[in-house]
Amino acid sequence: MSLDPVLSRIDSDLPHATERLLELLRIPSISTDPAYKGDCETAADWLVADLQSLGVDATKRPTPGHPMVVGHVDGDGPHLLFYGHYDVQPVDPLNLWDRDPFDPEVQDTPKGRVIRGRGAADDKGQLMTFVEACRAWKAVNGTLPCKITFFFEGEEESGSPSLVPFMKENAQELTSDIALICDTGMFGEQTPAIVTMLRGLLGEELTIKGASKDLHSGMYGGISMNPARVLARIIAGLHDESGHITVPNFYEGVPELAPEIKEQWDGLNFDETAFLGEVGLGKPAGEQERTGLEMIWSRPTCEVNGIWSGYTGDGFKTVLPAEAHAKISFRLVGTQDPHAIRENFRAYVQSMLPEDCTVEFKAHGASSASQMEITDPAFEKARVALSDEWPEAAAYVGCGGSIPIAGHFKKILGTDAMLIGFGKDDDQIHSPNEKYDLNSFHKGIRSWARVLDALTKG
Amino acid sequence: MSLDPVLSRIDSDLPHATERLLELLRIPSISTDPAYKGDCETAADWLVADLQSLGVDATKRPTPGHPMVVGHVDGDGPHLLFYGHYDVQPVDPLNLWDRDPFDPEVQDTPKGRVIRGRGAADDKGQLMTFVEACRAWKAVNGTLPCKITFFFEGEEESGSPSLVPFMKENAQELTSDIALICDTGMFGEQTPAIVTMLRGLLGEELTIKGASKDLHSGMYGGISMNPARVLARIIAGLHDESGHITVPNFYEGVPELAPEIKEQWDGLNFDETAFLGEVGLGKPAGEQERTGLEMIWSRPTCEVNGIWSGYTGDGFKTVLPAEAHAKISFRLVGTQDPHAIRENFRAYVQSMLPEDCTVEFKAHGASSASQMEITDPAFEKARVALSDEWPEAAAYVGCGGSIPIAGHFKKILGTDAMLIGFGKDDDQIHSPNEKYDLNSFHKGIRSWARVLDALTKG
Repeated sequence: MSLDPVLSRIDSDLPHATERLLELLRIPSISTDPAYKGDCETAADWLVADLQSLGVDATKRPTPGHPMVVGHVDGDGPHLLFYGHYDVQPVDPLNLWDRDPFDPEVQDTPKGRVIRGRGAADDKGQLMTFVEACRAWKAVNGTLPCKITFFFEGEEESGSPSLVPFMKENAQELTSDIALICDTGMFGEQTPAIVTMLRGLLGEELTIKGASKDLHSGMYGGISMNPARVLARIIAGLHDESGHITVPNFYEGVPELAPEIKEQWDGLNFDETAFLGEVGLGKPAGEQERTGLEMIWSRPTCEVNGIWSGYTGDGFKTVLPAEAHAKISFRLVGTQDPHAIRENFRAYVQSMLPEDCTVEFKAHGASSASQMEITDPAFEKARVALSDEWPEAAAYVGCGGSIPIAGHFKKILGTDAMLIGFGKDDDQIHSPNEKYDLNSFHKGIRSWARVLDALTKG
Repeated sequence: MSLDPVLSRIDSDLPHATERLLELLRIPSISTDPAYKGDCETAADWLVADLQSLGVDATKRPTPGHPMVVGHVDGDGPHLLFYGHYDVQPVDPLNLWDRDPFDPEVQDTPKGRVIRGRGAADDKGQLMTFVEACRAWKAVNGTLPCKITFFFEGEEESGSPSLVPFMKENAQELTSDIALICDTGMFGEQTPAIVTMLRGLLGEELTIKGASKDLHSGMYGGISMNPARVLARIIAGLHDESGHITVPNFYEGVPELAPEIKEQWDGLNFDETAFLGEVGLGKPAGEQERTGLEMIWSRPTCEVNGIWSGYTGDGFKTVLPAEAHAKISFRLVGTQDPHAIRENFRAYVQSMLPEDCTVEFKAHGASSASQMEITDPAFEKARVALSDEWPEAAAYVGCGGSIPIAGHFKKILGTDAMLIGFGKDDDQIHSPNEKYDLNSFHKGIRSWARVLDALTKG
């Protein structure tokens, strides 16, 4: 079987592939908001139907949350599993979007054509690069290149509560020779990347409670403890002056970077000024003795993702709030233990509470960091295949984001995960006006055709 | 003219007076929210019509914001002005109300009958105590007791932006021998009070800006400055460990309490444990060397009234917010200068900003503290009249709230203000389930009849 006809087919079918993606993007499958539960079902149904059109034995599989989509097709050669997620992030603040986030379109921009809409890059567009590569392969060759399992979840943006139980219950069905994941980015405009290091994620929500009701700040101000002040002290105390995180024992399990990896990363000539300048910033804000790439790839973080308390509407209300809330997350590296950190964080918060305040915690997911074993020859085959498609050779890189699925494949199924993706830094994922370059989509499909070819040549 | 028939008339007319108040409470005149502008007009119209029914020459007077209501009636004896406000606080969090805040009713409670609804105590119910006293007086005597000017504003809960310009433009029309204000509380269940000391109020809103858009905390976390962290540090730094406010020069103009006033206050046997216990608190949170009454009456405060940043909805969103917001207010005493404090606060905030953040400020009103001259014999006449109505003798007290109108009467019109009100600590003003005791309303009307009688006897 020759690769070229498949690549040609991908080129000629791009308009239809784009139309299919736009159709999927129109489904507002926001997993974290219960109001969109029906839309998550619709997105899963759409994927089942699309896989079935490729001859895949695909079904929607119920979970206590949003459904999984699992599909199998038989074949010779290695058994590959492909993972993606069909759920998307919420869209607020909606007023910062230039158009309805769920009315996607292809737009001409000064930097080329883009597919604009929520989920275009994270992860529907990326997920479809693999599906479209399979479609072209089948159109040319009549079958898919090997035995493939498709595995799509709908809770990735809301902590994946059903994922681990589902993987454990269906371990045999989901075990493959290698797992392919398309939810990451390019290293540069022309440099594809295979991610070999992923940060873990720990999410906590806390509510500080003071008085039994909101109070009048004239009548009670001064004499009464204000939970918003307490919350501010707690958050302010999470970092010291030099950017280190102060939660007790937080740095246990944080490794120093191996010299050869540090050298490779230094060779990537990461331009932190340009990276920050793109979003209106200028000064690296993490641990001051670290490089920019270390801050985002190999160092842990503590971030405030949301705070709210008291009156937040127009005008002014002299209220002394009864409660103050925060959503706080930690990115973890090395062998940091998310459960130990959760306990230590909670103990820190408790230690900061004055007599008249209490706290309630809500856990929002906990996953460890992952490190891939790139000694498996499949990694080097894929790297060469990617290098054939793109102007620059592919690089092994780290990733600041958390894709806990990679760790689950290893821990639960014993499978290594290969993370290849075509996102760009300016895709605005999780932000208003998310987009996916049409070029990422097109060359992403072509890249998967090449990787499938390389992995199945034997 | 004898007082007793007026008091009897008040007693017999109470059901109708209550009905009239419920009618006024049904108008959702929330001044701070532009959505309720029409309702503020409706409330003003209602008051104009009600005053006209008493033979008062009343009109609605436009301002750049919500209208004033001004009414005059001629007569012999002293010229009194009565001030109240017809606007009310917002009602959120709406889910904590036991019923629609604008569908008021009289309820039986273990502590007696109450009028439940937004504005019942602050200030529609209090305002109507004076109007109803006038109505009874007129019904019995055919005229009001003396020359009276009625002056109602609709912006008291939103910083009174139109008040000072309006008073200056209409200074001659609004000048009287003494101003009566009904927007304060009883000292105890049975102890009426005349407030002689009021805190000033300074409101500030700030927006800390970081990146040009919300960022993905995986891709940008660690390397990028988070405005929510910056805001937390700013708020945490506003108080030191012993409860003192750290804004530079903040305590300039804060007087020590005169020994005779401190002695009088100590004689009131204020039970701070009971006061705080009522709202689920237990430990005075202000400057640790001060008594509870000092904290709420004679010491300045800095309070956080609202904070918001990032994702605040259900679930979790790993966003690194582009902006963080706070509404912060200061209660001022003595001769503290609100404008100087605003400048010093802003300079403090600027000094806390890291390189990658900017700040925008929005001013929300600024008023100095007031101290009344109780040497005017009208004060002692009123105190005796109040003592006749209630079981315990009336007291001269301080007030933690800010009623800038009292200062404006003195500064702009040269008139002393006498603050008499019948609110209770548990009225839940500015909070869900606001109420006004039917007893406060009834004996409040009777109290004003007695005060009118005392002030006009000559």
